Amino acid sequence: MLKLYSFGPAANSLKPLLTLYEKGLEFEGNRLNPAIFEHHQDWFKAINPRGQVPALVDGDKVITESTVICEYLEDEYPTEVKLRPADSYGRAEMRVWTKWVDEYFCWCVSTIGWSRMISGMAKAISAEEFEERVKAIPIPEQQVKWRRARDGFPQDMLDEEMRKIGVSVRRLEDHLANQEWLAGDMYSLADICNFAIANGMQFGFPEFVNANDTPHLLRWMAQINARPAVQKMYAEVPMERLETKD
Amino acid sequence: MLKLYSFGPAANSLKPLLTLYEKGLEFEGNRLNPAIFEHHQDWFKAINPRGQVPALVDGDKVITESTVICEYLEDEYPTEVKLRPADSYGRAEMRVWTKWVDEYFCWCVSTIGWSRMISGMAKAISAEEFEERVKAIPIPEQQVKWRRARDGFPQDMLDEEMRKIGVSVRRLEDHLANQEWLAGDMYSLADICNFAIANGMQFGFPEFVNANDTPHLLRWMAQINARPAVQKMYAEVPMERLETKD
Repeated sequence: MLKLYSFGPAANSLKPLLTLYEKGLEFEGNRLNPAIFEHHQDWFKAINPRGQVPALVDGDKVITESTVICEYLEDEYPTEVKLRPADSYGRAEMRVWTKWVDEYFCWCVSTIGWSRMISGMAKAISAEEFEERVKAIPIPEQQVKWRRARDGFPQDMLDEEMRKIGVSVRRLEDHLANQEWLAGDMYSLADICNFAIANGMQFGFPEFVNANDTPHLLRWMAQINARPAVQKMYAEVPMERLETKD
Repeated sequence: MLKLYSFGPAANSLKPLLTLYEKGLEFEGNRLNPAIFEHHQDWFKAINPRGQVPALVDGDKVITESTVICEYLEDEYPTEVKLRPADSYGRAEMRVWTKWVDEYFCWCVSTIGWSRMISGMAKAISAEEFEERVKAIPIPEQQVKWRRARDGFPQDMLDEEMRKIGVSVRRLEDHLANQEWLAGDMYSLADICNFAIANGMQFGFPEFVNANDTPHLLRWMAQINARPAVQKMYAEVPMERLETKD
């Protein structure tokens, strides 16, 4: 059976979780605890040496990178539910949108999210324990991010990321004002991957996402949240606890 | 007939150029002149509002983003030459590598390339003309990059990008030490997209790419450079001139 290693249903972990639910594929879910750096522990680095979730295990194969996992599921499991447009141009549009999430949208939201939510976690442990944990992180840029979570992100970086969040929200709103879905006239991985980052921004970033400024973005999020697969996923997959003890 | 708008055969422009040549697809090539900011001129922004090359025009459709264009050509033109592994796992591996180019490898090489080569171009024009041209750039981050090219990139940014180039080269070398091609046991878009950035680094970055440190990376580049489609492309598509007058 497929095995998914992930955090709770948010951000990059939400992408393959929702894809699996939409396609009705059975899988064994393994939720890691980010608060104890579980994804940097040796047992998990034996699965993904980069120490990143999500990771999908399919027989003797390990597939990494959330967007790549989603396309893999479409390639390997041609269920009746299709999450990729059938035509080449629709697929290209879809990939422009998933690529944009991975290269722009997710980063600005992630940095603000870390400074608001991961900082507490990083500060809650002793300096010695923190250093031990940082040492176990395979990607240098992730080490830097954890240190910033503990020591504070530079204000000019936070300001710049907030600017980019504004640009991102505007881009989505403008596009969704004219189209029901992001790409190819159908609900696709473009919507799933953007929804993974956007959902909840009406609460976390109400200055950007609200009924006055982004009615179409709200309409699109409500439509996705109303889907049976989405409701089933949120009902069944608990959010991760951000506690520092196992 | 397919129309490609690009710079010369290097970096992101090389990806679709080589894909078209490898697949033997006929196309009309339109080379823009970056030295006069031709890609930010209104006629081109009518084709790609983001003012970026490459862009592919196929009938009434415009496809943007170099990696997306490559996958589009595979989806839409199933020639005998295949540049994507047939199996889902091979495709996933290929996408991990093309994604890595777009999110990491291309950026560090690009920043150093800009500081070495585009700077002269940005400094060669008057302050007034420069401001006019910057105003025409639709993407704010690209405006910043052009300003840095003129005023100088911060040294700590250049140092960090050089560090990342070292990481990138090591990653390629380690992988190519064990595999002939990057993904799926075949020459694929993973190789084309990485080659687009890596080729020539033995001259531009000999401290990283040389016979002692990266024999397998050199072997791989030589193999690709020896391919008939690559030789034909370099023979037929001229490098762009970096002159400031048309």
